[in-house]
Amino acid sequence: MSGTTALLEGGPDVVHLGLDAVAQAPRASGAQVTTVDFRPPAGGDPRRVALLSQLLSGPAAREVDAANARALSRLLASRPHLVGIGTARDVVPGMADGLFLHAGPPVSWERMCGPLRGAVLGGLMYEGLAADAAEAERLAASGAVRFDPCHHHDAVGPMAGLVTPSMPVFVVEDRGGERAGTRTYCTLNEGLGKVLRYGAFSAEVIARLRFLRDELAPVLAAALALRGPIDLRTLMAQALQMGDEGHNRNRAGTSLLFRELAPSVVRATEDREKAARVLSFVNGNDHFFLNLSMPMGKCMLKAAEGEPLSSLVSVMARNGTDFGIQLASMPGRWFTGPAQMVRGLYFPGFTAADANPDIGDSAITETAGFGGFAMAAAPAIVQFVGGTAEDALAATRSMRRITVGANAGFAIPALGFAGTPTGIDVRLVEEANLLPQINTGIAHKEPGVGQVGAGLVNPPWEAFHEALAALAEHVRALAPAPR
Amino acid sequence: MSGTTALLEGGPDVVHLGLDAVAQAPRASGAQVTTVDFRPPAGGDPRRVALLSQLLSGPAAREVDAANARALSRLLASRPHLVGIGTARDVVPGMADGLFLHAGPPVSWERMCGPLRGAVLGGLMYEGLAADAAEAERLAASGAVRFDPCHHHDAVGPMAGLVTPSMPVFVVEDRGGERAGTRTYCTLNEGLGKVLRYGAFSAEVIARLRFLRDELAPVLAAALALRGPIDLRTLMAQALQMGDEGHNRNRAGTSLLFRELAPSVVRATEDREKAARVLSFVNGNDHFFLNLSMPMGKCMLKAAEGEPLSSLVSVMARNGTDFGIQLASMPGRWFTGPAQMVRGLYFPGFTAADANPDIGDSAITETAGFGGFAMAAAPAIVQFVGGTAEDALAATRSMRRITVGANAGFAIPALGFAGTPTGIDVRLVEEANLLPQINTGIAHKEPGVGQVGAGLVNPPWEAFHEALAALAEHVRALAPAPR
Repeated sequence: MSGTTALLEGGPDVVHLGLDAVAQAPRASGAQVTTVDFRPPAGGDPRRVALLSQLLSGPAAREVDAANARALSRLLASRPHLVGIGTARDVVPGMADGLFLHAGPPVSWERMCGPLRGAVLGGLMYEGLAADAAEAERLAASGAVRFDPCHHHDAVGPMAGLVTPSMPVFVVEDRGGERAGTRTYCTLNEGLGKVLRYGAFSAEVIARLRFLRDELAPVLAAALALRGPIDLRTLMAQALQMGDEGHNRNRAGTSLLFRELAPSVVRATEDREKAARVLSFVNGNDHFFLNLSMPMGKCMLKAAEGEPLSSLVSVMARNGTDFGIQLASMPGRWFTGPAQMVRGLYFPGFTAADANPDIGDSAITETAGFGGFAMAAAPAIVQFVGGTAEDALAATRSMRRITVGANAGFAIPALGFAGTPTGIDVRLVEEANLLPQINTGIAHKEPGVGQVGAGLVNPPWEAFHEALAALAEHVRALAPAPR
Repeated sequence: MSGTTALLEGGPDVVHLGLDAVAQAPRASGAQVTTVDFRPPAGGDPRRVALLSQLLSGPAAREVDAANARALSRLLASRPHLVGIGTARDVVPGMADGLFLHAGPPVSWERMCGPLRGAVLGGLMYEGLAADAAEAERLAASGAVRFDPCHHHDAVGPMAGLVTPSMPVFVVEDRGGERAGTRTYCTLNEGLGKVLRYGAFSAEVIARLRFLRDELAPVLAAALALRGPIDLRTLMAQALQMGDEGHNRNRAGTSLLFRELAPSVVRATEDREKAARVLSFVNGNDHFFLNLSMPMGKCMLKAAEGEPLSSLVSVMARNGTDFGIQLASMPGRWFTGPAQMVRGLYFPGFTAADANPDIGDSAITETAGFGGFAMAAAPAIVQFVGGTAEDALAATRSMRRITVGANAGFAIPALGFAGTPTGIDVRLVEEANLLPQINTGIAHKEPGVGQVGAGLVNPPWEAFHEALAALAEHVRALAPAPR
């Protein structure tokens, strides 16, 4: 955590790559120090360099390290299980009629991006509160609906992330470790194309949401009740051996979940045609498991929270306008910056000019140590990172530089069964000058259109700079350095 | 195909690795030739070196190359589909009451290994021809049952490979290329542990075979009739992106097949509990797809047959006593040698002393260019080849030295989406002194026990030496060199 300083024979005494402060000791002792050109820590900003020095050395650093170790250990010990499916109104804490949840940090109707607005309009029609888009728009602007981030309710939602009161949600529960009993929530995945989470709200979108509520959710809930809870971590571990990374590729996770549920779907459903429709819907949607990998990640990260001195990132989430992060030391406090544009591959007929900035809670997968951080497990989607399997390995390896550990339970065969890099440390992000890498879908910037591509994105530096400053203040207040 | 001869600056004029004959030209022209120590082609045997020279150079070689190119092109153009499930007696050509099919080349009861004998005893009890093992043994020894290789009936069977008249079989049909309409056959996979194909014949084994016949096969047949044929090549191509190699790992193929069939299973089966039992059985058996990857491979290889001058291997199969190969130029003619011991990992309580020699038709997967030849696609089973993902890549790369092409339809992400090495050329095997690598299960050597491990094995050299000699003779007869 203090840069890389190496002794080379026959060259300069010391070659230094890292914080300049670290090179002072050898310099003071008379060694010849050669500093190699590279991206400076903390962007070279003197104030942040000073904060970083404070947080990376001395007694405070040791306490932060210890807090991170405890947080990571709890994250790794968590055992998220799919335990049921309920209606948001009944099961999501704090959910109420007139409240719509959305992805990312808080945002007002006025500042909402196109796809999130589109999802809200669709949500109002789905709930029967508006007959058409025009009426829905008036209603949304009137303040008749309150908006709140999913994360404020232990929920996560892909893309727009809209959760309305009558939507069915997966219930995920931690069944191991110190935080057993923690529950997290996510809606059921709608499939690809014209779907609410990408801001579409046509009649087919609303009809599909009603199928999810009236047929898919009850059938799967009954099957799950018959079968019993499903261990998501084990399922994810297998999926990582089968080409998934759990964010942009979920074919294996979906297949394994399908196999687990199908016999119980048949046993629990008297209407065979209905059972067949439900199985066909899941079979037709290779992203079905995404809406379980996400609340699994949220559940793992909630286990990490509550360490007052931890520098670990416990949330990364975007509402399409702002990108917000939280630290395990300050749950609920957002550090934000502008949502970035995605470097992506576009569907035929669309270009970057159509794209909305980065949106969705799905970056919870990277925060929890898979998704973009497990790119090496998913060579089939390497076109996102340069096109070769070696690029995918390099992408995962680079994330080791900003994480404090690895999840041995999520082993990547192509990296010698090394665990996925886990536990983003805001200090390491600043020191390495390297942002987390996120795999993501791309929504059209206008409401009502839908998905236009997929690609790679990073958070804005602002969020990490803010978080670093707040952590330094927090650490000063809680653990004053001995004088 | 003529060794590797390279010009190096500042060193010897020529560094030669390969057939000595090839180095004669540069030597004759006065160049300094340095021959590097390596395994000599054709094991250094002068007679085989001469045959090899004849088959690798001159007009005959060009005709063999052209025949191989045509054979490979047909193999690659074949489109095996699962089209139905029938009873062996009704659908397998030449099948009849009193006839039992087995894996590998022909073998008499007297020369049969333990696990094949065990399977025969189980088959006799399953068919109701014997009440117990003692009666079955008397019957088998009496000559009351005829034995024939599966391959003589366009069928393939894993391990013992026993097919008895009333067993259900998958029907695979070529739906593309010049050989459209070709059909191949394989029984349904029983699962792991105590199963007939590993030589077990206890009451539970027989009861499971009856479940396969009376419940699994009819339900799946009805589902398949409702759904329509399944394109196995496309399914296999996906499975290779999901960690399968199609021989010792079939979890992805099984999952994808399960997803394709489940909705139709529900629609086609009135008895929901029966449908659920069938789905649970398939879900509980990650090798279910093996019994489709095998007849798929057989179907592809049958497309390659019928080139009188081809040196491609079209069959590799073992009966637990002998290992036999066939060439695409001489379908039906076996070249054999002793079945080898498997270098394997053993289940707890078993050692190499318990192992039967190599057995089964499943080497059809390697012959068709996957299985052990696609090891790089299946890092989760790299413990078979040394333990690291790099070992798996090396294993697949090495098979390029003995194959004439690659199957672009079977792309391996970790090898830059290169196709799997396909089309084993008996000439290249001899020249490179490198045998095909086969992934396989290990059966206990005594009848009635079952599987004891899994690992790697090679064919015996004798089979390739015999095949090379026969090919040379065949080529001389069919394409006399111009004098």
